[in-house]
Amino acid sequence: MNQDTICAIVTAQGGAIGLIRISGSNAIGITDNLVVPAGNNKNFKSQKPYTLTFGRIFSGGELIDEVLVGLFRSPHSYTGEDSVEITCHGSPYIMQQIMQLLIANGCRLARPGEYTQRAFLNGKMDLSQAEAVADLIASSSASMHRLAMSQMRGGFSKELSDLRIRLLNFTSLIELELDFSEEEVEFADRNELYLLADEIEGVISRLVHSFSVGNAIKNGIPVAIVGKTNVGKSTLLNVLLNEEKAIVSPVHGTTRDVIEDTVNLGGVMFRFMDTAGIRETDNEVENLGVERTFQKLDQAEIILWMIDATNNVREQLEEFSDKILSRGEKKQIIWVFNKTDRLFDSQKEELTSFLASCANKDTNDIDSIFISAKQRIGVELLQQKLINSTCLPAVTPNDVIVTNVRHYEALTHALDSICRVREGLQTQVSGDFLSQDIRECMFHLGNILGEVTNEMVLENIFGKFCIGK
Amino acid sequence: MNQDTICAIVTAQGGAIGLIRISGSNAIGITDNLVVPAGNNKNFKSQKPYTLTFGRIFSGGELIDEVLVGLFRSPHSYTGEDSVEITCHGSPYIMQQIMQLLIANGCRLARPGEYTQRAFLNGKMDLSQAEAVADLIASSSASMHRLAMSQMRGGFSKELSDLRIRLLNFTSLIELELDFSEEEVEFADRNELYLLADEIEGVISRLVHSFSVGNAIKNGIPVAIVGKTNVGKSTLLNVLLNEEKAIVSPVHGTTRDVIEDTVNLGGVMFRFMDTAGIRETDNEVENLGVERTFQKLDQAEIILWMIDATNNVREQLEEFSDKILSRGEKKQIIWVFNKTDRLFDSQKEELTSFLASCANKDTNDIDSIFISAKQRIGVELLQQKLINSTCLPAVTPNDVIVTNVRHYEALTHALDSICRVREGLQTQVSGDFLSQDIRECMFHLGNILGEVTNEMVLENIFGKFCIGK
Repeated sequence: MNQDTICAIVTAQGGAIGLIRISGSNAIGITDNLVVPAGNNKNFKSQKPYTLTFGRIFSGGELIDEVLVGLFRSPHSYTGEDSVEITCHGSPYIMQQIMQLLIANGCRLARPGEYTQRAFLNGKMDLSQAEAVADLIASSSASMHRLAMSQMRGGFSKELSDLRIRLLNFTSLIELELDFSEEEVEFADRNELYLLADEIEGVISRLVHSFSVGNAIKNGIPVAIVGKTNVGKSTLLNVLLNEEKAIVSPVHGTTRDVIEDTVNLGGVMFRFMDTAGIRETDNEVENLGVERTFQKLDQAEIILWMIDATNNVREQLEEFSDKILSRGEKKQIIWVFNKTDRLFDSQKEELTSFLASCANKDTNDIDSIFISAKQRIGVELLQQKLINSTCLPAVTPNDVIVTNVRHYEALTHALDSICRVREGLQTQVSGDFLSQDIRECMFHLGNILGEVTNEMVLENIFGKFCIGK
Repeated sequence: MNQDTICAIVTAQGGAIGLIRISGSNAIGITDNLVVPAGNNKNFKSQKPYTLTFGRIFSGGELIDEVLVGLFRSPHSYTGEDSVEITCHGSPYIMQQIMQLLIANGCRLARPGEYTQRAFLNGKMDLSQAEAVADLIASSSASMHRLAMSQMRGGFSKELSDLRIRLLNFTSLIELELDFSEEEVEFADRNELYLLADEIEGVISRLVHSFSVGNAIKNGIPVAIVGKTNVGKSTLLNVLLNEEKAIVSPVHGTTRDVIEDTVNLGGVMFRFMDTAGIRETDNEVENLGVERTFQKLDQAEIILWMIDATNNVREQLEEFSDKILSRGEKKQIIWVFNKTDRLFDSQKEELTSFLASCANKDTNDIDSIFISAKQRIGVELLQQKLINSTCLPAVTPNDVIVTNVRHYEALTHALDSICRVREGLQTQVSGDFLSQDIRECMFHLGNILGEVTNEMVLENIFGKFCIGK
């Protein structure tokens, strides 16, 4: 195992205080070279763990800073290695100087997520728990925090481990049968195995389905705002986000990139996606934007289909009806009639009767609302509609909900395998097939926990962490 | 003394780790209410100082975070009070939750600089040292750091205290004379006092003069870029700063506000000020800008006087010659001929002969350079000229250099008083006048150290700190 000593600044720049973390077999020795403890005849090698020591750091005889040194000894530290935490003044110059001294004394700059990776490799936590650390740090709402904390504390891991152990017991029996294959014995009760496979399928299936909730909590419920150019999509986005995120201009086709941002409405996180307006155009860049708009429709759970109420409504609805409706299956669609502050009474009547005429068609279950994004009329009602149209279950601290794409994928594979096991039992396939499918299911569950894994997977996971984690 | 318990997040948002500091008489009691230490029967009240304890924070039965708690007991802490430092995960949600729990348990949110203010009030440092803490945290270069560290360690304070003590001894003797005024005795040797006043005047005068160096190190050497509109001032600023700070456009009068930024050239910090172009205009806003330009000239140590080499050079130089030269006394002026990439050969010759003709005039000591800001031609040479034209002395860790405007002002007043003392001794004024001037000098020196001070002054000083310091 890599035992070199790593260091990193673990606090963000700009505060009053900075924290530098050192971890590895030589962490305490390097600290002794670097920090002069206050008081006589002291050194850090003889210092007890879990203590704080006041000391001074010099460079070339010049005082760099007065610091506090926290000491941890293996295995009782976050990484499981000897570790030191230096609390210094939050000056960029001071922190840089201390880092340079650490490196000159034999430390190496930590890679992103390397502290947590070491904690995982030293058996302080399994992979799913390690991944939850990043989520915990990023959490900005109660439900995100709750999910990450539950995962970090091992609720999810325990559920998966239990399944694996039960599968392991069964596959051992089946594999034992194979050793005695000529005797046609059945150590593993097929009925019991069927019940188990069924139960496990139920559990994994529940976890797989929890991902849509987990993802919505972690990333927000995706809401796409679509419609022709210049119907006021960017204006609505800005009103919903309460800031000037999207550039608003009366020029057709102003928004080219998809602009996304999240906002918390009534405790639920929504991720709004402003999209390029849909129109036929020769402009290549803009066409790329329109293409992306349709991709976004696939990701959305809710579609706000904006219509300029002052223009030909029927035409706007018909023109892209196919494209939007074909991609809008199982999605909540809301017709948002904008610019209604500029409607004449006669136009209003026409619009109302048009909507009434839709009541019996296949657009029947589409909700509709009249707003003026510019005048902020009807926006609160729209927000309420959005909140009502989501049915996120309340999350309790004990709920096991999948929030991680990697876990979701592994669980999907595990679900396939366990389905094959159940079907195989029904069609009475031979023990070696059963065993292979059970092993496959175990492999995927083990992948989540990091029990079967490789360098590349780890690099991929921890590379997404920030430095200092 | 205010002994309520204060709390603040002392690290910047966005890191892996966050640090929350609690200080005050109930800091440890509140921590006991809030954090459940790992292990049995432990509590923080019985915990030794300078220890780290692993613990958990719950809110309404739900785990908020696993934290490390550092413990300090009065008077051995930064503030001199009982203090606790909680290291938690750097999630905005977690830090907010912990702060809310602290406040619910009786903490109060710390005001800006309140930790350092308490350290000052509890006698852990004098006022000048306390002020250096903010400078230390803000320091981003070796020399800024060196000055702040020297001041924080008390080099400056010691020099001032020494002066005060010597003045106090003398004024005591003089005031003793006043008690025996009818007997016409002289306890205080006037010759000795004259020598002392002379010496102190020398010391304070040196400190006052060190401010220009201190200020240059702390804020950068001020360089004004002036010239007519559209000669390329903003383009030059952007090239010098290596970024797009100023809005560049071919429209005359684009820059209205003075844009400032610092850049480190060859280890010296320069503060460049892009100014509004000088031209007669009816536009009021622009005229305000031009007014500010001339004010900036007064602050600058170096003036880059930009001239469009492709236009009538002589006219550009003559038009504002008076205004710039009258304000440019004792300042280094450099004529920067811009757009020289677009000069015809004949124009070049003309320009060269014009410059030669200046050699004998009063503009004789003005340096000049040919550049093209747009093409980045000659910019490095200009940077070298800037570096050469400064003569900042090298600062050693033991140098006492004034960097603080408040100190500078107090020292200026102290200098006035001590001059009056010296002059009074020459003209043999009476003891009570001498005593008053000496007391005044001592008052101003004491002001710097915080020995004579009031609530308002303190609020003013510490209010400029950030929260958590």
